[in-house]
Amino acid sequence: MTSRPESDPKTDGQGGDALVVFTPSGRRGRFPTGTRILDAARALGVDLDSVCGGRGICGRCQVVQSVGEFAKHGVSSRAEHLSEFGPIERRYHEKRAPLAPGRRLGCSTTVFGDVVIDVPPDSQVHRQVVRKRAEVHAIKVDPVVRLRYVEVAPPDMHEPSGDLRRLEVALGEEWDLSDLRCDLQVLETLQAALRAGNWRVTVAVHGDRDIIAVWPDLGDRVYGAAVDIGSTTIAAHVCDLVSGDVIASAGAMNPQIRFGEDLMSRVSYVMMNPGGEREMTAAVRAAIRDLLREAAAQGGIAPDEILDVTLVGNPIMHHLLLGLNPVELGQAPFALTVDRAVDLPAGALDLGLHPGARAYVLPCVAGHVGADTAGVILSEAPYLRDEVSLVVDVGTNAEIVLGNRDRMLAASSPTGPAFEGAQISGGQRAAPGAIERVRIDPATLEPRLRIIGSDAWSDEPGFDAAAVTGICGSGIIEVVAEMYLAGILDEDGVIRADAARHSDRVVQDGRTYAYVLHRSGIEVRVTQNDVRAIQLAKAALYAGVRLLMDRLGVDRVDRIRLAGAFGSHIDVKYAMVLGLVPDCALPHVTSAGNAAGTGARIALLDRSARSEIERTVRRIEKIETAVEPRFQAHFVEAMAIPHKTAAYPELAKAVTLPARKPSGARGEGEGGDRRRRRRARAR
Amino acid sequence: MTSRPESDPKTDGQGGDALVVFTPSGRRGRFPTGTRILDAARALGVDLDSVCGGRGICGRCQVVQSVGEFAKHGVSSRAEHLSEFGPIERRYHEKRAPLAPGRRLGCSTTVFGDVVIDVPPDSQVHRQVVRKRAEVHAIKVDPVVRLRYVEVAPPDMHEPSGDLRRLEVALGEEWDLSDLRCDLQVLETLQAALRAGNWRVTVAVHGDRDIIAVWPDLGDRVYGAAVDIGSTTIAAHVCDLVSGDVIASAGAMNPQIRFGEDLMSRVSYVMMNPGGEREMTAAVRAAIRDLLREAAAQGGIAPDEILDVTLVGNPIMHHLLLGLNPVELGQAPFALTVDRAVDLPAGALDLGLHPGARAYVLPCVAGHVGADTAGVILSEAPYLRDEVSLVVDVGTNAEIVLGNRDRMLAASSPTGPAFEGAQISGGQRAAPGAIERVRIDPATLEPRLRIIGSDAWSDEPGFDAAAVTGICGSGIIEVVAEMYLAGILDEDGVIRADAARHSDRVVQDGRTYAYVLHRSGIEVRVTQNDVRAIQLAKAALYAGVRLLMDRLGVDRVDRIRLAGAFGSHIDVKYAMVLGLVPDCALPHVTSAGNAAGTGARIALLDRSARSEIERTVRRIEKIETAVEPRFQAHFVEAMAIPHKTAAYPELAKAVTLPARKPSGARGEGEGGDRRRRRRARAR
Repeated sequence: MTSRPESDPKTDGQGGDALVVFTPSGRRGRFPTGTRILDAARALGVDLDSVCGGRGICGRCQVVQSVGEFAKHGVSSRAEHLSEFGPIERRYHEKRAPLAPGRRLGCSTTVFGDVVIDVPPDSQVHRQVVRKRAEVHAIKVDPVVRLRYVEVAPPDMHEPSGDLRRLEVALGEEWDLSDLRCDLQVLETLQAALRAGNWRVTVAVHGDRDIIAVWPDLGDRVYGAAVDIGSTTIAAHVCDLVSGDVIASAGAMNPQIRFGEDLMSRVSYVMMNPGGEREMTAAVRAAIRDLLREAAAQGGIAPDEILDVTLVGNPIMHHLLLGLNPVELGQAPFALTVDRAVDLPAGALDLGLHPGARAYVLPCVAGHVGADTAGVILSEAPYLRDEVSLVVDVGTNAEIVLGNRDRMLAASSPTGPAFEGAQISGGQRAAPGAIERVRIDPATLEPRLRIIGSDAWSDEPGFDAAAVTGICGSGIIEVVAEMYLAGILDEDGVIRADAARHSDRVVQDGRTYAYVLHRSGIEVRVTQNDVRAIQLAKAALYAGVRLLMDRLGVDRVDRIRLAGAFGSHIDVKYAMVLGLVPDCALPHVTSAGNAAGTGARIALLDRSARSEIERTVRRIEKIETAVEPRFQAHFVEAMAIPHKTAAYPELAKAVTLPARKPSGARGEGEGGDRRRRRRARAR
Repeated sequence: MTSRPESDPKTDGQGGDALVVFTPSGRRGRFPTGTRILDAARALGVDLDSVCGGRGICGRCQVVQSVGEFAKHGVSSRAEHLSEFGPIERRYHEKRAPLAPGRRLGCSTTVFGDVVIDVPPDSQVHRQVVRKRAEVHAIKVDPVVRLRYVEVAPPDMHEPSGDLRRLEVALGEEWDLSDLRCDLQVLETLQAALRAGNWRVTVAVHGDRDIIAVWPDLGDRVYGAAVDIGSTTIAAHVCDLVSGDVIASAGAMNPQIRFGEDLMSRVSYVMMNPGGEREMTAAVRAAIRDLLREAAAQGGIAPDEILDVTLVGNPIMHHLLLGLNPVELGQAPFALTVDRAVDLPAGALDLGLHPGARAYVLPCVAGHVGADTAGVILSEAPYLRDEVSLVVDVGTNAEIVLGNRDRMLAASSPTGPAFEGAQISGGQRAAPGAIERVRIDPATLEPRLRIIGSDAWSDEPGFDAAAVTGICGSGIIEVVAEMYLAGILDEDGVIRADAARHSDRVVQDGRTYAYVLHRSGIEVRVTQNDVRAIQLAKAALYAGVRLLMDRLGVDRVDRIRLAGAFGSHIDVKYAMVLGLVPDCALPHVTSAGNAAGTGARIALLDRSARSEIERTVRRIEKIETAVEPRFQAHFVEAMAIPHKTAAYPELAKAVTLPARKPSGARGEGEGGDRRRRRRARAR
């Protein structure tokens, strides 16, 4: 108990004061009796939400009194220390939304004695979105676009001032906003909104600066979208900017594929067809527009309820999105037109959203390391950690980020498209029908495989051999690694002629040999050239990583995160077997999922993340692999399979044949599997 | 001479220093020998222009040495105290533009001893445009949009940074610009411009903040436009933003006339046809676009060389330009959607200018007092004067501004359209064929008249009686005043029945009488109703003026300025005879011409004028005549003709019959005229 004299709850605001303790923040202060909970919270900087400015209509400021003796806080929080459930709360409860038992409106409840007041998570302005993977930090929900409900003074002939000025006065008085700007399109709707709402409106304010939308009455929903523009696919997530929740996600092929499968062929298209960038710009914008319309519909909202959109993409996607010619990015010195983040009206990108919607394109790191990598960096936040992280995003090029809170490096390595299944004889994009998992029995050299779109292994019931269409990136990694583990490949990556004597799966193929992975329906074989392509790709990736490690002065990394579609699909063990990435304790090598898209989502939900990634990108040291003499040396050294790593023995144990699964459920029976593998090795 | 030891001109920059005196500013300072004139000027804050940043290519920093002994400045300015005409100057002289004798490039000329350097007006950044009328202040030329020439670092693979960042670095280093923003459309052209200019570009910067255009190499021309949107006509002036000169002017009818002749009928159109404001918005924007295209062609430039446009108009024109519904302006409380100045991309108004062009719409004063009045106020600048000015802009309403540097008042008075020739039996807009000048012989009651489009009076050779089409506003003022002076009207404005006995020009017209002003071809008569309409209009105007005078606490004003088309055409003497405006010494009652358009031009040429008018408009006290009880009293009192003014005897002398002109030249023979008039009165 405090030593100060206690106020009498019966004095009804006359003279006394009360100690108010907020949980979970622990903030506390004394206030005159009769003070509103919301005002006390604001005075103490307690994170208690309100859209309607304390008028009892938005219901955002709900609190719960903790009743009892709280020795820890020195407070006797008695029920009668709060005002009774009043008419405003009753009206809210009956007309708007029922209040759960114990819930009070902070704006309509006043204190008459010491109280402990709990602010439940849904009443906090700065909510947090917990991410699926425990190893990454939660996303703070503090969007750039916020809703502000105000009551505007009606016009007065004697003191003529425009609707906008009176709106700004209200926003200044009620929300402490000043120096506001207002789009012409808002002006077009302002008049009608003010009158329809009888001078009560909800305003969407971007960055505490720009009035971007206005609606009559109280509005309490506002949405945003995060878009990840890949060369192959475009993904969009529509988020509720109040809760931070993803309400819908959608994906589509990037229609630019018709101008060229990979990035360089799209750049070539522009070189051969001057002005061709405009066609590709129009195509990608239309695709995003359609995708957002689809996602919005899926989430049960209209596209014009989306007021903010963040976008990431590699430098060429980034330039084509913005209508910038990408040709310079296809040739040294790989000059970006703009590297810093681009903040612009979404209307300039023709995305079909609310007329006032804004777009934010994350910064690019360098000519080869784009806004998608900025998204990965933001999502993974290696710059917040003490340990040294290696983050790799594999596509046509591999973007490599290395470092910790002290120093960050980035580079792009020319892996070529082999990891994406291109330039591989049976290769294809990761799509249904593509072989994604492979196991080869070292005794018989017989393969078992699984395709995308099916849970069954090839030796299980339900597997449709005719459904096999080719092999995707992660499948190629596995088959090459398994070929090595089964003794089909030697350390130099040569398919051994003598293996052909043990199995008809190994066949002559011109002057070299090939491994026939699948032969019902179409034939999928792994040729010597395919192995070479994978060796070149993995050597390029590894050499890039080594270059950054040299520069940072480290011999090993503490953790490795594999981002992107390839990183999500790949079994990290096989990446280690092949030596795609350097030595690292296996549990610390994990997939980061679609980190670029997650980064876009973070930039959407948390305004401080934007300045954070802008600052971070500026201080990243950019390494251009093409002009680093040591790159070539590392590259040559990294061609062998397996690249020598300290983790190799441990790895070899970890890589086991899968068990035949009775139920078709994934991941079961690994124990039996491991036992069988040990038997196989023992022979 | 200064007491400091003089430097030796032969020391060639070694150790000595030199006194540099600039004229006309008189600024002076000592600099090490070898200092460039441009650097000395910058160090002293001397107004010496440069676009190319001192590279000897723009030729803007030309100076002239004043050679000789200047006791006043204490300087012996000898020719050898300046560096010799050097290779950079020779190159400029031969390749770019010949330098006049004595002219030097300040960026390529260094001092080796004391000098007096004259900065000619065309080398000053802040030029002044002298206006035709001596009584108004000159316009400072300091536009919001300025050109900046820079040399940008080429891209470097080792330090990757975007073209935009390197451009910004150059703008920061060479022009001290920071925190720049860049439009997407500039990004679209930046890449090509930088490469076409071999990393030398000229950038247009708006308000030291926004990069709005970029061109390869040195560009030194940039244009703007000032647009005055009247209910009837739209006028545009295209200006050279470097010299401040008007290079072309054009006018067109406001196509909104097809939706309604006057403002209220256009508001009614929207009331009757919801969404009709969009048609009118599209119409006026298309008209401005066409007009600017026409004016640009006339000035020999392309519309996309226009980078800035300022616009004025009455509140309804203002709202329709911006796409805002004007209905609220047609009814109490006459609420503007936006009163403050609107700064926006010109593209939002679809004006067909450079994609980066900006638009600035002057602020509105009140629901009846628009951006056109703000233009008038800026042009006339009564807020800079000690004496009390009355500025009147007559249209369908009369906008009235009264005050001086201490206090400013404004109101709108409902004069109705009579002054514009509407609701008058023979009335018409001021257009060829309209009677604009009238004299009535008090003896014979015979009129003489002149029409717009002809210099001949009706009793002179060359007058085509069949060309008369009606009577315009200024003609109505004159005929009513002359009818009174000739004794046809009594003080109450009644056409005297006994006048019909003296002349067949005065005829019975129902229960009242009319004066037949013209009867060859069409008949133009002035009916009792017409006289009443003028009485009502002039009483409304006068009552509004009186109300402001009451509020300001003055009995008389020091000067009166009549703005707008009506104010330009009207003979101020007749306005005084009729009592449209209060007592004022006749020489201080003058026409202000198209002051609204001039105000737009000032806001275009001088960036400080924008904040000046915004500040001024905010502090103007707005009087709503409709709710002022004293308005009615003033109104009734002002119905009589002539309204009693102290100046009346002087006025009556000033108003004389014109002489018959032998040559057709205007204004000749006033002496004889006056004599004849005195004879007439003497009878």
